[in-house]
Amino acid sequence: MRKVYSSLLLLLAIGVFSCQSGGNNNPTDNSAKNEIAQVDSAALKVVNQIYDEALTNGEGYELLRHLCLNIGSRLSGSEGASDAVDWTKKVMEDYGFDSVYLQEVMVPHWERGAKETCSISQSNENLNILAIGGSVPTPANGLEAEVIMLDKLEDLNEAVKDKIVFFNYPFQQQHIRTGSGYGDAVRHRVHGPSKAAELGAKAVIIRSVTTSLEDDEPHTGTLVYQDSTNRIPAAALGVLSANKLAEAMKSNPNTKVKLKINSKWFPDALSYNVIGELKGSEKPEEVILVGGHLDAWDAGHGAHDDGTGCIHSIEVLRMFQQLKIQPKRTIRAVMFMNEENGMAGGKKYAEWAKETGEKHILAIESDAGGFTPRGFGTTASDEAHNKMQSFLPYFNHNTIGYIKKGGGGADIGHLNKATGAPIVGFMPDSQRYFDLHHSNNDTFDKVNRRELELGTASMATLVYLTDLFGLE
Amino acid sequence: MRKVYSSLLLLLAIGVFSCQSGGNNNPTDNSAKNEIAQVDSAALKVVNQIYDEALTNGEGYELLRHLCLNIGSRLSGSEGASDAVDWTKKVMEDYGFDSVYLQEVMVPHWERGAKETCSISQSNENLNILAIGGSVPTPANGLEAEVIMLDKLEDLNEAVKDKIVFFNYPFQQQHIRTGSGYGDAVRHRVHGPSKAAELGAKAVIIRSVTTSLEDDEPHTGTLVYQDSTNRIPAAALGVLSANKLAEAMKSNPNTKVKLKINSKWFPDALSYNVIGELKGSEKPEEVILVGGHLDAWDAGHGAHDDGTGCIHSIEVLRMFQQLKIQPKRTIRAVMFMNEENGMAGGKKYAEWAKETGEKHILAIESDAGGFTPRGFGTTASDEAHNKMQSFLPYFNHNTIGYIKKGGGGADIGHLNKATGAPIVGFMPDSQRYFDLHHSNNDTFDKVNRRELELGTASMATLVYLTDLFGLE
Repeated sequence: MRKVYSSLLLLLAIGVFSCQSGGNNNPTDNSAKNEIAQVDSAALKVVNQIYDEALTNGEGYELLRHLCLNIGSRLSGSEGASDAVDWTKKVMEDYGFDSVYLQEVMVPHWERGAKETCSISQSNENLNILAIGGSVPTPANGLEAEVIMLDKLEDLNEAVKDKIVFFNYPFQQQHIRTGSGYGDAVRHRVHGPSKAAELGAKAVIIRSVTTSLEDDEPHTGTLVYQDSTNRIPAAALGVLSANKLAEAMKSNPNTKVKLKINSKWFPDALSYNVIGELKGSEKPEEVILVGGHLDAWDAGHGAHDDGTGCIHSIEVLRMFQQLKIQPKRTIRAVMFMNEENGMAGGKKYAEWAKETGEKHILAIESDAGGFTPRGFGTTASDEAHNKMQSFLPYFNHNTIGYIKKGGGGADIGHLNKATGAPIVGFMPDSQRYFDLHHSNNDTFDKVNRRELELGTASMATLVYLTDLFGLE
Repeated sequence: MRKVYSSLLLLLAIGVFSCQSGGNNNPTDNSAKNEIAQVDSAALKVVNQIYDEALTNGEGYELLRHLCLNIGSRLSGSEGASDAVDWTKKVMEDYGFDSVYLQEVMVPHWERGAKETCSISQSNENLNILAIGGSVPTPANGLEAEVIMLDKLEDLNEAVKDKIVFFNYPFQQQHIRTGSGYGDAVRHRVHGPSKAAELGAKAVIIRSVTTSLEDDEPHTGTLVYQDSTNRIPAAALGVLSANKLAEAMKSNPNTKVKLKINSKWFPDALSYNVIGELKGSEKPEEVILVGGHLDAWDAGHGAHDDGTGCIHSIEVLRMFQQLKIQPKRTIRAVMFMNEENGMAGGKKYAEWAKETGEKHILAIESDAGGFTPRGFGTTASDEAHNKMQSFLPYFNHNTIGYIKKGGGGADIGHLNKATGAPIVGFMPDSQRYFDLHHSNNDTFDKVNRRELELGTASMATLVYLTDLFGLE
């Protein structure tokens, strides 16, 4: 028996989507009445143009495709980093920005060398591992020792002497914003090796700092050696490998592991921050900065960390140009070099800004991925913060839902410290970031085109409103 | 030369995450001062427990894995649908909910049959296609005709007679909430076949209704035949196949296509809404409903549409039980049958609720995917809406950022119409949904565990606060 569907029922089902959808920026959707009064309708029109342009004609996704698939990993001092400098400079020149230039900076140069190996001696079972960035190598034929498994950094004790310390600390999943969980767990990666070395340990391996529970990709990152003498090798295990090792330790507390790391330090290398500008029409000496970092770990494509931040920044300028938005101040895109293992680029930029005395009205950094926008976090005077908060009604509540105190970026943090310039961190949704971060999973296919473009539009909107209304 | 990293620099980089992270629910983060005063600290503590439980001990992801990988597609009347009924009933029984039962409902039963085929006659090039759900079949040896390409439904004219109409309407990407774009484009799928048939067309093919630009998976869905006599076959092309056909039409306006659809209608089948309850301690006769739909199209796993909505609903009850939250009212999880092609389950439930006169305090539906939460949309009295808005400060702003007017769900829409019960649609982030929706891409691996669990916690929180404070 064939059915004649009821049009009414169908339309009702479809209507669910229609009526759930607020359309584009409608200040009545996300603002109290007193805020609506503050919305300038001409400015709102431009904001809507910005979002439309990003979603319909955005070029960011194709730029990111190139950066990820044709350049890929680009740790400071590497050929990839050099290629990324050349390419981003050319992209901005080809767009015809008013000014495109490089800022010299000497950067540390560490290389992983041949793929690390790790196995459980008793069972010969291989464990999936990546050296932590900056780790010294093991002896050429590897290092073998008994493992001591600790729940957390604070459990270190004299029993670790001559052993390989395994920090089996899991990511604390209860944090809603995953950055909090990262900030908590990462102490094992950053400080574990030095603290274990002080007590005579031979090496450190950690459970990767990641939200993922399912795959076995290790997540690298950097470490801090407290001094230049007592340095021990350090590496991160994939989650499933960490599970395996923990099981082995439970059945045999004398489990040994063999570890081989082939890393090498090279002399500091000359590299660059890459900078592009649209010159201000009224106050060209005042700058609004948008930035990300161009370097990336040598695992995956550095897609979300931080290819997307670089592309966001370039695209903000391209959209201003495309939409013929003539800024009063100079809008500057900065691709910082060496955020991952030294921050030489951010430091250099801050020194330069301090020397020149150039006034930065605002600096915005995107370094938390190319995911759907949620908010902005500010480190600024109350006055500047409140002014930015007054911009909230311009944002569709499915993009920027809050502008809160606290936030910035690793690179622009130096600018803030050196000059007092207000800074803002772009805060996309954080749920997926640490599944990918610093691992082979951080690849182009993990970036959704629309999410990326909404990030661009959100940053461009904050730049536009800041330029239009100022922050004082 | 080896580097001694500056701890200070590193800590600064890590601090970016720490200070960007608001921790869990902190009412100062997302509310104005007048709202903070309304937050009950004991209730806030329970809300935090709900989020913690979901993120650390949530069982939804493993339940969804089973539904997707062991049951998979489950269109009304199919064996998969029957298996899904049995399994969800058993899951809720095994959890020991106070009451678990089935509600009989007769559902339409359409089957796709053997995989459709479509090719360009002149070039023999294959096009990737899926019949639109409910489509009549072509003749057994297929149907071949010249194609007429139209930009949109409204361009239909007498020239379509005896032709295959190709609606080449693209998804309008500028909508920030993608549901708006879907509501706009889907008229070609729903009404195109009948309107073209009225003018004598032989068949309709459409560019799939999807935000994706990159893959060639066709997206199915349902159609409305206006009458029972003049019915023509209808199918949806993958985006890349639609591009190919559009190119072919440009170089040869007499391009012919050969189409074969093997679908079949069967007699209506007996199926069920699956219902589980926790009985209220004070007002058991009053109900708060959480629901999703159990049926899914026969492409992909029906993971986001709407496996996640069913799992959300079961998990809300499990978490109440696990956390020993004793509700005053009865909390009822409903897995509706047949949302996709008839809504018999939603209609049946509404009739039953009207007959019994049972009071629904609130009904919440999750049918927009298992993505990170953004808000709730209400269809309710001003009083009930305002009461729900007053709950906003209980939510971390990285979960529910708004509670707005407009929204509900296809299934609970019938309940609202029949009884006037207030309804709410859960609104997760919409950017990825229509890349996957109704296609082979809607699979388990597209669901992120943390995003899914945050949806559960957000729905459970709204249920908890509604039960605690009422909506009047």
